[in-house]
Amino acid sequence: MAEVILDRVTTASGTPNIAFIKYWGKRDYTGLNMPNNSSISMTLDETLSTKTSVVFSDKLKRDELYINGNEEAIVGDKIPEKSVYLKRILDQMRGLAKVKQNALIVSENNFPSSAGIASSASGAATLIVALSKALDLNKSPKDMSILARQISGSACRSLFGGIVKWNKGTEEDGSDSYSEQVFDDTYWPELIDIIAIVDPSKKKVSSSIGHAATVKTSVLYKARPAFAENGVKEIEKAIREKDLDLLSKTIMKDSNNMHATMLDTWPPIIYLTDASRDIIYGIHELNETEGECVAAYTFDAGPNAHIITLEKHREKVMDMLSDMVGVRRTIESHLGKGPRILKGNVSLINEKTLAPKITSTLS
Amino acid sequence: MAEVILDRVTTASGTPNIAFIKYWGKRDYTGLNMPNNSSISMTLDETLSTKTSVVFSDKLKRDELYINGNEEAIVGDKIPEKSVYLKRILDQMRGLAKVKQNALIVSENNFPSSAGIASSASGAATLIVALSKALDLNKSPKDMSILARQISGSACRSLFGGIVKWNKGTEEDGSDSYSEQVFDDTYWPELIDIIAIVDPSKKKVSSSIGHAATVKTSVLYKARPAFAENGVKEIEKAIREKDLDLLSKTIMKDSNNMHATMLDTWPPIIYLTDASRDIIYGIHELNETEGECVAAYTFDAGPNAHIITLEKHREKVMDMLSDMVGVRRTIESHLGKGPRILKGNVSLINEKTLAPKITSTLS
Repeated sequence: MAEVILDRVTTASGTPNIAFIKYWGKRDYTGLNMPNNSSISMTLDETLSTKTSVVFSDKLKRDELYINGNEEAIVGDKIPEKSVYLKRILDQMRGLAKVKQNALIVSENNFPSSAGIASSASGAATLIVALSKALDLNKSPKDMSILARQISGSACRSLFGGIVKWNKGTEEDGSDSYSEQVFDDTYWPELIDIIAIVDPSKKKVSSSIGHAATVKTSVLYKARPAFAENGVKEIEKAIREKDLDLLSKTIMKDSNNMHATMLDTWPPIIYLTDASRDIIYGIHELNETEGECVAAYTFDAGPNAHIITLEKHREKVMDMLSDMVGVRRTIESHLGKGPRILKGNVSLINEKTLAPKITSTLS
Repeated sequence: MAEVILDRVTTASGTPNIAFIKYWGKRDYTGLNMPNNSSISMTLDETLSTKTSVVFSDKLKRDELYINGNEEAIVGDKIPEKSVYLKRILDQMRGLAKVKQNALIVSENNFPSSAGIASSASGAATLIVALSKALDLNKSPKDMSILARQISGSACRSLFGGIVKWNKGTEEDGSDSYSEQVFDDTYWPELIDIIAIVDPSKKKVSSSIGHAATVKTSVLYKARPAFAENGVKEIEKAIREKDLDLLSKTIMKDSNNMHATMLDTWPPIIYLTDASRDIIYGIHELNETEGECVAAYTFDAGPNAHIITLEKHREKVMDMLSDMVGVRRTIESHLGKGPRILKGNVSLINEKTLAPKITSTLS
C-alpha cells in the first residue's frame, strides 16, 4: 500500500451514458451483472455529471457514503439493496490495495434526481475511477469497467468517452464482459442527445427487478438477445459511416423492442407514458416529413425521451417538442470525454475534519 | 330463388365479442382473413347490439348501404376499403341464391361509435345472418362464420353466443378457418365484462394495416402464434373448470403479449394510454390484495379496458375504477346468446318506400 496516501482526498468526475442498443436481461443472478447481449452507448458530456470524492483514514470509525447530501448505509444490517454490490466492490478494491482503513465517499450529481435521469451509471463509474486512484491500483479502464459493471451493469459503459461498446462476454466469471471505446468523442461532434424530461409516471418499477422478471416470464424475450447483438453491429456501421438514417432506425427499433419485452413481462412493466408516446409519434412524423430518419427516440427504464440527432436538425426537434403537453424541459448533450480525476480545490470532503462539505442540495 | 321473397324486409340482431385470446396477424393477404393463431372470445349480451335490415327488390336502382344513418358507398369507384369485402360477400351470397336484384341494407348500433367500441364484428355477423335469411340460403352458423370472417376477421366469433373459438385452420381456401361455440351463454352466468371507456388517444392506427405490419416487421411476433394457440387451450380449461384465477392470468398475458408485438412493429403501434396503464396496474394491485386473480384486463386495438370478472367481484372493480382519472364511463355485459332474426315491427326499412326509416342517430 506504499502509494496509498491516507487522509488525502481524491476526487473524480464522470457522466451518464445513453444506450443506443439496450442492456435488459442478465445471464447470471450472482451479482456479476453479465448481460444476455452486448450493448452500445453514447457517453454524455459534463452537462450532466457526477463528482465523487473519497478518502481512506484511520480516523474514520466506519465506512461512510453520502449521495447528494444524504447518508446511505453501507455497513451494518440496513444496507439498501442498491449499495450491497457497491460495498462488495469497495471491499474487493481495498483488499487488492492491502488497505484496512475505512472509507468516506461523498458523491454529488449536478442534475436533480427528480429530473428522472438515472445517475447510477455515472455514479458507479465515477466511484470506481476515484477508488482506483485513491488506492493507487493502476487499473486500466477496461478493468475498471468490469468493476463498475458489478455495481450497476450499464455503468461499465461510462468508463470511456465517445461511443462505447459493452461486450457481453461468455466467461462464467465475467472477465470478458467489459467495455471499450469504439469511437472517441471527436469522431462525430455534431451528434447530440436532446433529453426531453416529461411528467413522471406514478408507478415506478425497479429496473433490477424488471430485468430478472423479463428473462423469466416473457415468451417474446427469447428473440431479443440475437436481435440486440445484431443491432450493435448496425450501430457501429452507422456511426462509422455517419449514416444518421440507419443509426436512427436502429436506435428506435431497439428501444421499442426492449419496451415490448417489458410489456410482455409478468406482471407487465410499462415505463412509457402518453407523453412518451406523443414524442414517439412526433419523431416518426418528423422523419416522414423529412423523407429519411433525421432523429431517433430512445427510452431507458423511464418515460423521458432521449432524442438522438445532429446539430443541424436541432431546431426541428425543438419545434416539435415545444408543441407537446407533458414535456417539462430539455437538456442537451454532445459526446463526452468520459471520467477523469479532478485537480485543485474541488473536493467534496473537508480534509481536516474528514466530513462532507456542505453543498447546496439539489432536489 | 323460390324462397327469396322480394320486397320483404328481413331484420337480424347481433352483438360484439371480446377476445380472451386475440387475433393479430394473418397468414394471407388475399382478403380471406385467415389468422396465424386460433382465438377465443366471449360474445356479449344485447347491452351492445347491432340491428340490420335487408331487402332485395327490382325497385332498387343500385345496392345501398346505410350505417348509423349515413349512406356508405358499396357500388362504383368510391367504395371505402372497409366495404370492399362486404360487397364481395354480398355478391357471392346473391349468386348462390341466384338473385339478381339490388339490395338495401340498413344497420344501426345501439351504442355510439364515439364510445370507442368496435362495431365491425357485430355489424358483419349480423349482416351475414340477415342476408342468409333474406336469401333463404339455409346456411349453418359455421358456414356463416366463414362468410363473416371474410368481411372482418373477428366477426366470425359473433356468429355464436357464449364462449366461441375460432379455429385458425390450415386450408388455403380458408374452409377450415371457422368458429364454433365451446360453452353456451348459460354455462357461467356470473361471468361479466365491465367495459371501461377511457379518454380517447389522439392517434388512431387502423387495425387492418397494423396486422400486416406486425407480421412483416416484428422480430418478437414470431413467438406469438404458438403462445396464443396454447392460450386458447388454457382458456378452454379455465372456463370448463370455472377457474377464474387461471382465466384471468391467461387473458391478461395474452393482451400484454399482443400489445408488445404491436410496440415492436415498425413503425410502432401503441394503443394503450396512461388511463389503460392505470387500469392494468390497478387490476394487478386488486389481484395482489385478493391473493389470487379475481379480475382480468384485456385491450383490443384501442385504449378502452374490458375487465373480465365475476358478479361477486363487481363492486371491488367498480371501486377501483371510480378512483381513476381518465375513466369516462362503464358498460357491463354478461355472456350473450348470439345473433338472431327479429320478428314483429322492428324493421329499419320502410317496406312501402324501400327507404331507411329515420331513427335517432347516435353520436
